[in-house]
Amino acid sequence: MKSSRTRPGKVFLVGAGPGDPDLLTIKGMKCLQAADVVIYDRLASPELLALAPEAAERICVGKKGGHYSFPQDGINAVMAAKAREGKTVVRLKGGDPFVFGRGGEEALFLVDAGIPFEVVPGVSSAFAVPAAAGIPVTHRDLASSVAVIPGHQGEDSPQPIRWDHLAKSADTLIVLMPVQRLRQIVAELVLNGKTLDTPAAVIQSGTLSGQRQVIGTLRTIGSQASEAGLATPAVLVVGAVVRLAAKLGRKTAAEDEQFHQSAEVAVGVFPR
Amino acid sequence: MKSSRTRPGKVFLVGAGPGDPDLLTIKGMKCLQAADVVIYDRLASPELLALAPEAAERICVGKKGGHYSFPQDGINAVMAAKAREGKTVVRLKGGDPFVFGRGGEEALFLVDAGIPFEVVPGVSSAFAVPAAAGIPVTHRDLASSVAVIPGHQGEDSPQPIRWDHLAKSADTLIVLMPVQRLRQIVAELVLNGKTLDTPAAVIQSGTLSGQRQVIGTLRTIGSQASEAGLATPAVLVVGAVVRLAAKLGRKTAAEDEQFHQSAEVAVGVFPR
Repeated sequence: MKSSRTRPGKVFLVGAGPGDPDLLTIKGMKCLQAADVVIYDRLASPELLALAPEAAERICVGKKGGHYSFPQDGINAVMAAKAREGKTVVRLKGGDPFVFGRGGEEALFLVDAGIPFEVVPGVSSAFAVPAAAGIPVTHRDLASSVAVIPGHQGEDSPQPIRWDHLAKSADTLIVLMPVQRLRQIVAELVLNGKTLDTPAAVIQSGTLSGQRQVIGTLRTIGSQASEAGLATPAVLVVGAVVRLAAKLGRKTAAEDEQFHQSAEVAVGVFPR
Repeated sequence: MKSSRTRPGKVFLVGAGPGDPDLLTIKGMKCLQAADVVIYDRLASPELLALAPEAAERICVGKKGGHYSFPQDGINAVMAAKAREGKTVVRLKGGDPFVFGRGGEEALFLVDAGIPFEVVPGVSSAFAVPAAAGIPVTHRDLASSVAVIPGHQGEDSPQPIRWDHLAKSADTLIVLMPVQRLRQIVAELVLNGKTLDTPAAVIQSGTLSGQRQVIGTLRTIGSQASEAGLATPAVLVVGAVVRLAAKLGRKTAAEDEQFHQSAEVAVGVFPR
């Protein structure tokens, strides 16, 4: 697409999904293919960035080596400037933009700036990462409710985690990015009513080829994660559904590969 | 693919996403394109079924007109029989197969039957339907936790909803398929501590062209949904994030259409 056109550009806040590039949505793929500019975070997969036209501008605004984070104001300013040049801008965000992704803040900024935008949901890591380890977040007779919370939350948050109620409400609890505070999280759950033998799992890099996980209980999971050296990005799952991983755990990569090689893929799009 | 081959077939439990066929994942699309058999539910979109080869067998196992539901044992038997013929079977399920989708039960059956399978996550309606109405389920200063529960649950469930804790734990509460029991759900929340002026929204057919919604508070939402005649499939969202819909609400369909017509789409797949 040319940047010299009269109608204003548009920003697409696109959910990249949990990691595996094939878990991007078809709509997300179409947006990337139409992009003049892609603004992406550190964890974005190279395969996804490659979907954009070769001439598209690619701007990384994520942390580099854990030391630097592009300020949100800067991300907003880049989105606005590129859109005002008439460009189609894809703001690619891990998981789903509206689930712990600060997508709401970026969307509000775009509204106030008068820039057209659209949110393209993605597969959330909160559900897909447990699935990749063979853990359904709900399951008949085991869990009919699920709660999702962040592992790291600002001390000054106006919405502190209500551990007292949370530990007793949802059957399955998902904690995103739990590794750095894993022992405190486990302590809060146990102090507020979860038993020490409640099944628990930590899954690192879920859905990616480097996926690793430890499965145990609240009593053991902290030590297991430390000993395995699990690191960010990761997801903690707490609840009886974790036991299903023993039967439903991920098949071998070789088996996946067999399918992808045998599948006769002829990609089509939906008529509009 | 031919059905006469020596290696055993495989079942893919594929999440179809919330409704809009473009919200299927690329992986889900590849599975459908490789399918010999597609086993689908009532709500599956015709565009998704059309992705399977013309010669593929399509088997509907969902409710028809609300009167008939294929028993789970029957679905399992069909999956097993087709896979044992060496066929590639796609079991297409709304949303995500492992999020209130009974996918875990089907996966356990396949393990016990010795049939290879793989779970392909989908975009969950729990998050994408609120997004389609301009509601991020988390948002800085408004909500840092989200819980998802089913609107209809068997009276004999071994996991009753803990309304007392749920009403005080997650900042945002999502209730799937709430319409038939909407007044009881609202009553439980209010009796357990949510104030009557807590923002609430009911969204019907979210992400589809027929999307409709009502936005109000716990005091008003029951009457609003009745007066608007909202029906299944729908999602209830309760919490301060609902207020964002006023600013972030869905753009006009015309605007969406403009993008889809202007986008120069050249579909590619990732090399394996």
